[in-house]
Amino acid sequence: MNASSASLLSKIDSPADLKRLSRAELHRLATELRQYVVDSVSKTGGHFSSNLGTVELTIALHAVFDTPRDRIVWDVGHQTYAHKILTGRRDRMDTLRQQGGLSGFPRRDESEYDTFGTAHSSTSISAAHGFAMAAKLKGEERRAIAVIGDGAMTAGMAFEALNNAGVPHGGLLGDVLVILNDNDMSISPPVGALNKYFTRLMSGSFYAAAREGAKSVLKNTPLYEFARRFEEHTKGMFVPGTIFEEFGFNYVGPIDGHDLDALIPTLENLRDKKGPQFLHVVTKKGQGYKLAEADPVKYHAASGKFDPAIGFVKPSVPPKKAFMQVFGEWLCDQAEADQKLVAITPAMREGSGMVEYHKRFPTRYFDVGIAEQHAVTFAAGLACEGLKPVVAIYSTFLQRAYDQMIHDVALQDLDVLFALDRAGLVGADGATHAGNYDIAFTRCIPKMAVLTPADELECRQLLSTGYQFKGPVTVRYPRGAGTGVDAGKALETLPWGKGEMRREGNKDGKGVAILAFGTLLYPALQAAEALDASVANMRFVKPLDTELVERLARQHGLLVTVEDGCVMGGAGSAVLEHLQAVGLNVPVLQLGLPDVFVEHGEPARLMAQCGLDAAGIERSIRQRLGVPALRAVND
Amino acid sequence: MNASSASLLSKIDSPADLKRLSRAELHRLATELRQYVVDSVSKTGGHFSSNLGTVELTIALHAVFDTPRDRIVWDVGHQTYAHKILTGRRDRMDTLRQQGGLSGFPRRDESEYDTFGTAHSSTSISAAHGFAMAAKLKGEERRAIAVIGDGAMTAGMAFEALNNAGVPHGGLLGDVLVILNDNDMSISPPVGALNKYFTRLMSGSFYAAAREGAKSVLKNTPLYEFARRFEEHTKGMFVPGTIFEEFGFNYVGPIDGHDLDALIPTLENLRDKKGPQFLHVVTKKGQGYKLAEADPVKYHAASGKFDPAIGFVKPSVPPKKAFMQVFGEWLCDQAEADQKLVAITPAMREGSGMVEYHKRFPTRYFDVGIAEQHAVTFAAGLACEGLKPVVAIYSTFLQRAYDQMIHDVALQDLDVLFALDRAGLVGADGATHAGNYDIAFTRCIPKMAVLTPADELECRQLLSTGYQFKGPVTVRYPRGAGTGVDAGKALETLPWGKGEMRREGNKDGKGVAILAFGTLLYPALQAAEALDASVANMRFVKPLDTELVERLARQHGLLVTVEDGCVMGGAGSAVLEHLQAVGLNVPVLQLGLPDVFVEHGEPARLMAQCGLDAAGIERSIRQRLGVPALRAVND
Repeated sequence: MNASSASLLSKIDSPADLKRLSRAELHRLATELRQYVVDSVSKTGGHFSSNLGTVELTIALHAVFDTPRDRIVWDVGHQTYAHKILTGRRDRMDTLRQQGGLSGFPRRDESEYDTFGTAHSSTSISAAHGFAMAAKLKGEERRAIAVIGDGAMTAGMAFEALNNAGVPHGGLLGDVLVILNDNDMSISPPVGALNKYFTRLMSGSFYAAAREGAKSVLKNTPLYEFARRFEEHTKGMFVPGTIFEEFGFNYVGPIDGHDLDALIPTLENLRDKKGPQFLHVVTKKGQGYKLAEADPVKYHAASGKFDPAIGFVKPSVPPKKAFMQVFGEWLCDQAEADQKLVAITPAMREGSGMVEYHKRFPTRYFDVGIAEQHAVTFAAGLACEGLKPVVAIYSTFLQRAYDQMIHDVALQDLDVLFALDRAGLVGADGATHAGNYDIAFTRCIPKMAVLTPADELECRQLLSTGYQFKGPVTVRYPRGAGTGVDAGKALETLPWGKGEMRREGNKDGKGVAILAFGTLLYPALQAAEALDASVANMRFVKPLDTELVERLARQHGLLVTVEDGCVMGGAGSAVLEHLQAVGLNVPVLQLGLPDVFVEHGEPARLMAQCGLDAAGIERSIRQRLGVPALRAVND
Repeated sequence: MNASSASLLSKIDSPADLKRLSRAELHRLATELRQYVVDSVSKTGGHFSSNLGTVELTIALHAVFDTPRDRIVWDVGHQTYAHKILTGRRDRMDTLRQQGGLSGFPRRDESEYDTFGTAHSSTSISAAHGFAMAAKLKGEERRAIAVIGDGAMTAGMAFEALNNAGVPHGGLLGDVLVILNDNDMSISPPVGALNKYFTRLMSGSFYAAAREGAKSVLKNTPLYEFARRFEEHTKGMFVPGTIFEEFGFNYVGPIDGHDLDALIPTLENLRDKKGPQFLHVVTKKGQGYKLAEADPVKYHAASGKFDPAIGFVKPSVPPKKAFMQVFGEWLCDQAEADQKLVAITPAMREGSGMVEYHKRFPTRYFDVGIAEQHAVTFAAGLACEGLKPVVAIYSTFLQRAYDQMIHDVALQDLDVLFALDRAGLVGADGATHAGNYDIAFTRCIPKMAVLTPADELECRQLLSTGYQFKGPVTVRYPRGAGTGVDAGKALETLPWGKGEMRREGNKDGKGVAILAFGTLLYPALQAAEALDASVANMRFVKPLDTELVERLARQHGLLVTVEDGCVMGGAGSAVLEHLQAVGLNVPVLQLGLPDVFVEHGEPARLMAQCGLDAAGIERSIRQRLGVPALRAVND
């Protein structure tokens, strides 16, 4: 095959095509593929550095293994652009992360090569172990491969999986290959003991050579036999086991993850071995794109288009301040005012707006790595000693620490503030990252307060309010910016458990009152104009402003609850529960996110699709007002 | 001090009294304390084997450390009876786990010596790390100690904590001591690679001696200098680090945890060391009580009183079959009928009724250790390959795998059945183990079905129904027995999403209809007699039988929802949401668990206290019928 450099990639429609290439052609393919990733992401936005880091590994995996028969599980999955390009989705890369287009993560319904949907970190070894054990039970010969980053390896879940995958169950030992893609870089700078351990392992081809060296040095001395027998009894004496060997894996590495001539023979060798295998691969995030190599954190992900030649440029009009920035500024100011404040992030320093805080308050900043469970119970411990922990966490990742929130914080009534970012729909990241459920799953916890600010200023005010309150509090706010209300610099608090009226509408008992929770207050206000509806900014899901709810119920013919969380069990249901508890039998229309997994897309469009823009809210209310069933059935 | 053998313990009212005793007296105290534990538990029931295993360790800790100034965090905390006895609660041991009495776990509000409330496994290192870092930040000299079992060490959370506690944060390194209480025995037999690793560590005093031996053998040979330098560069070469040393801890052990003469000097030594310390202690569950030593699983916990001299005896009248047994029998029969069934437990073989299943289907049985997160994602992997996983898990422990349930199972619409045991109040274990929240936190997940059987037969039927349904399903059932309805041997299914009428009451539009979810159907039926109320056995929280709900709403003046889960966001709220969605404006009374942490006590009494026995249900309904606000406000 004598293809021109430009045309190699264009002929790869599946891994079978890849397998026909010579080693030299694979090298060229890597160059083409890397350029294709740069060009694609520059047009669509998306994860960047990590995808440049896995180009050669992806080629090597599909060249060596019999995919999709062999199962590759990509941990987190944001590094799968090369994988998507090589598995028949090259021509759809311009639709990446857009509504109706390719997902930014692997998805089972997108390709048979996407064996397991990922997006949250550290699930891959568990899933691959499932694939491997299923193969054993079904008597099928196939290999299950988990590709996991060094950051993802800090999550306890990965260890739970290692602890299981390395030993037999019911006499069956799975053929699972774990590939540690070690690029010394999760989104935030690496933390924790494990990372230091990886660095020690990497320090050494020296190390690997030395192990053999020591044995040859001993050879032909009386110590050799001693050493040999010793090694038998105390595996790890002269050939110290890596911790992965202690977990039952055959450890190989570290090898250069950008060297196809190392990767391919090593993978071929591992492919033919039985039982749990562990390959330690070292890669560089942003490899081959100088700007990203130099600043992999900045180039972790591109939120929109950029020019591949000059990289990201600052927009000339500064964007509106995102809620995470409002949080970051509040955090610094509150920390300045109160020595007791300590802040905790599970590996989301940048994504939670905490860079400045980290710089200014290094001893009161704790990045615990991807370890949400530990983050919350660690916070509980700090709170027991009279410190005031603020746990900054995405709504979707709090799902990982749900038990700790109940069992370690709320049950002990500890004074911990949860700053919940990315509440509601998140846009391009899609259903895996949706913050739809937190109102439902936090408000059912006794002692837990749940606050929903409507804009930037109120976000700051409710963070201060929650901070001052003695007990567990959650303040939730969405991705991106709000309406642009200046948050100011004050640390003022708002009255506990009280909402406020924002528009007084028709109160003759026949009119409509909208009870808005969170940022949907603004489209609700717009919708209210056309309907002459009253609008309350509720602020608190829990404790609910029951006085306000009751007053509105008495003054209006229809209550409408609006929230950017799931309707099932959400803030609207809190209103229903209270009305029934006090015997106020008024009709309520609940508007919020539907009981489906909302796919990725442009946030405003998605919200409109869910009927949660101003037009949608107005439409839903008008529709409801039109139905005869509005009357109580027992009239 | 020359106290008689019988009187040593009676004079210990706090650790200060302990510190005055000679070593010989401490030995005698251990004997007395062990006997006191046996006598206490024989009267009250409670955890047993584990408490006999920690007698000497507890004495040594309080003798050596300055408690409560130094913070001891007891992982799980069911091994703290000796600790309670020595810290001023000796005379209240007869109230253990009873309403108003001592908790079976440490509680911050019970004693200043209980620094952190525990009950769920594997939280101790995170909390202790919080205590240690708080001490550093506040400039206080104190030590934080986590006592954790080998079973608890398999949970990822423990690793997340180790990964953080072994390295400095913001330049501060905490003085934390982790004591691994290695008794080779969680409730179920030990599993996983880590356990094998501990066994290897234990195999050796040989090991420890050999390390020193190797060095002395080398001394005065040319290899010695080589080895010494080598060790510097590759820590772990000649003195292989345990994995705990790789995590940054100074590892000491293993030592005999029943030998005060080993424990006390070792703890004294560690007390004076700075930075992260790790002590590996080997104990025997049930130590000193022959029956428990011989069968620690059986003697893990005593559900009621027993005779210390003869141990547990089988009750002459066999108790009613518990729901977990109904599940266990169904599981065997379903597995017999379908080769695709695989069952997964996170270290709860006995507690989930899976002993027989394990025996009969060893290759299709997976005990993953205390690793709920892995359990669920592993199940997802198995389901992708066309197997049919049944995850047997307690409601309270599912909180640990909430994200995995959403992100790995429901989002991919995978065919996994969750058999949720211990739903609702659990009695003696108290608020930490309460299964109050699962209806609220599962029903808000798209694609997830939530089934609530009313009795043993229906439990079996709904397990079959959920099993046959293609997609994620949760079947929840309570601790203990139901009404005693024979579950039979059939594998019949019930109509999907359909409830049934169990009593036809007054349907003139003014009467009451009770919609019962789960086992409270039976008290609801009793209450209905007095009120001539209609009663529906709803069976499904999701999908809700909307047709039935609407019919009942049209035929009655008041709907009453009854469930043994939290009212907030629960099944009753699902009914409210639907009624409002279709504009049926009928009054609803929601009965369920209140928004408080319900403390430990006798289940029937607790339920009565929550108004969920027959009398309470009737009372609540009568009360509601009496209030004038029953009418719609807009009449």
